[in-house]
Amino acid sequence: MSSEVRLRVSAAARDLFASQGYERTTVEAIAERAGVARRTFFRHFRSKDDAIFPDHARIAATAEAHLEALGDVPPFAAVASGVKMVFRSYVDDPVVAVERYRLTRSVPALRDREIASVSRYTRLFGRYLRRRYGDESGAGLRAEAEAAAYVAAHNHVLRAWLRSAGEGDPMPALDAAFGWVAARFASDAQGDDPAGRSSVRPAAPAAPAAGGVPPGGEGEDVVVAVFRSGEPIDDVVERISRSL
Amino acid sequence: MSSEVRLRVSAAARDLFASQGYERTTVEAIAERAGVARRTFFRHFRSKDDAIFPDHARIAATAEAHLEALGDVPPFAAVASGVKMVFRSYVDDPVVAVERYRLTRSVPALRDREIASVSRYTRLFGRYLRRRYGDESGAGLRAEAEAAAYVAAHNHVLRAWLRSAGEGDPMPALDAAFGWVAARFASDAQGDDPAGRSSVRPAAPAAPAAGGVPPGGEGEDVVVAVFRSGEPIDDVVERISRSL
Repeated sequence: MSSEVRLRVSAAARDLFASQGYERTTVEAIAERAGVARRTFFRHFRSKDDAIFPDHARIAATAEAHLEALGDVPPFAAVASGVKMVFRSYVDDPVVAVERYRLTRSVPALRDREIASVSRYTRLFGRYLRRRYGDESGAGLRAEAEAAAYVAAHNHVLRAWLRSAGEGDPMPALDAAFGWVAARFASDAQGDDPAGRSSVRPAAPAAPAAGGVPPGGEGEDVVVAVFRSGEPIDDVVERISRSL
Repeated sequence: MSSEVRLRVSAAARDLFASQGYERTTVEAIAERAGVARRTFFRHFRSKDDAIFPDHARIAATAEAHLEALGDVPPFAAVASGVKMVFRSYVDDPVVAVERYRLTRSVPALRDREIASVSRYTRLFGRYLRRRYGDESGAGLRAEAEAAAYVAAHNHVLRAWLRSAGEGDPMPALDAAFGWVAARFASDAQGDDPAGRSSVRPAAPAAPAAGGVPPGGEGEDVVVAVFRSGEPIDDVVERISRSL
């Protein structure tokens, strides 16, 4: 019941924001349109901004529980599956998602709220990865950068879909984007092998500094080779030799 | 002069938020403490939240101009240098940065403001990378994920430094973090070679899907090999062969 009231209030807020503008819409008007008391509004939402993002807290809690329930799958697969769950919360209701996108683009206060929500997802997935990477050297940086990249991929595909007014199935594009991000971070995987890919791991983390001087200090470059497992090994060796 | 007033109002806001709490501090009290009229406050800031983040708009504009002025440096180096400029705006004034961090951690409204600012930097750097990557396939995704990862690295190092109460020089850690992120994305670099690293590039973008099935559909895995350019080629080949 409570959830039904939330959805009704939220729909009323969207309708009024769209028809008479965000600034001119009061909490009182939203409550009246939804047929609830002002007090009831504030039992569900802190402010009128909150009212058009009714699901973020619930979705985040669901995604977190989902991650916990997954058990021992590769960290990459777990996060991809969690981010997908967030993505589906938009895709499952294209009309609401597109309308909300239109509002967040035109009202800075709503855009900032949306950004804050997205940031909470990023932190949630970052914390999960951090825990999975345990004592790895640089685990904190890896977890945060990787979570940020997955959420950026989510946003990239979502935005394209919203701009097309919610046409078509964006899931294949999302899978491809996640795979691309995963391949970036797989080159440094230690102790787990995302998606079962084979990979040759560096003996030690070596990274060039922003100024172009490797912090390792030995003056050696890092070589990153990406190829398909089905490629003849001779071709791979030839390409690597040529690049050295 | 105008900038001096801004700084004075901002310092007054920080002082009052810290001494009597964020909720109980009014715009009027801030203006009074800064010795300016209420009207003057609103000429500089939209709200009391705004008052403790006085520099973000200016820093973003400076970083953008900096990127434009850099000319034809590798995209990675340009963004690293731009993000560093943002980073320095914190590090240059440790007392203010640490105090602001304390406030953003304890006041959700301020934390959301900070998050919105960080997101604006991410979009700025993403737009720059997008432009630099031009017609590359997947340029949009690459630019957004890479920008998000650099900003995550910035936040990771900044947070560690702020938690240590602004002790020591965080710049070497920032350089190392940028280098690590750059190495992740270098494996897909096309047409530019960040930091002059050699790398073997994939013939075509191939990425495993979230569910573990490569979207390419051929059932092939992607192999990512990372090694040092100084390693004997035979050792590298042996390691790759073993992993296939």
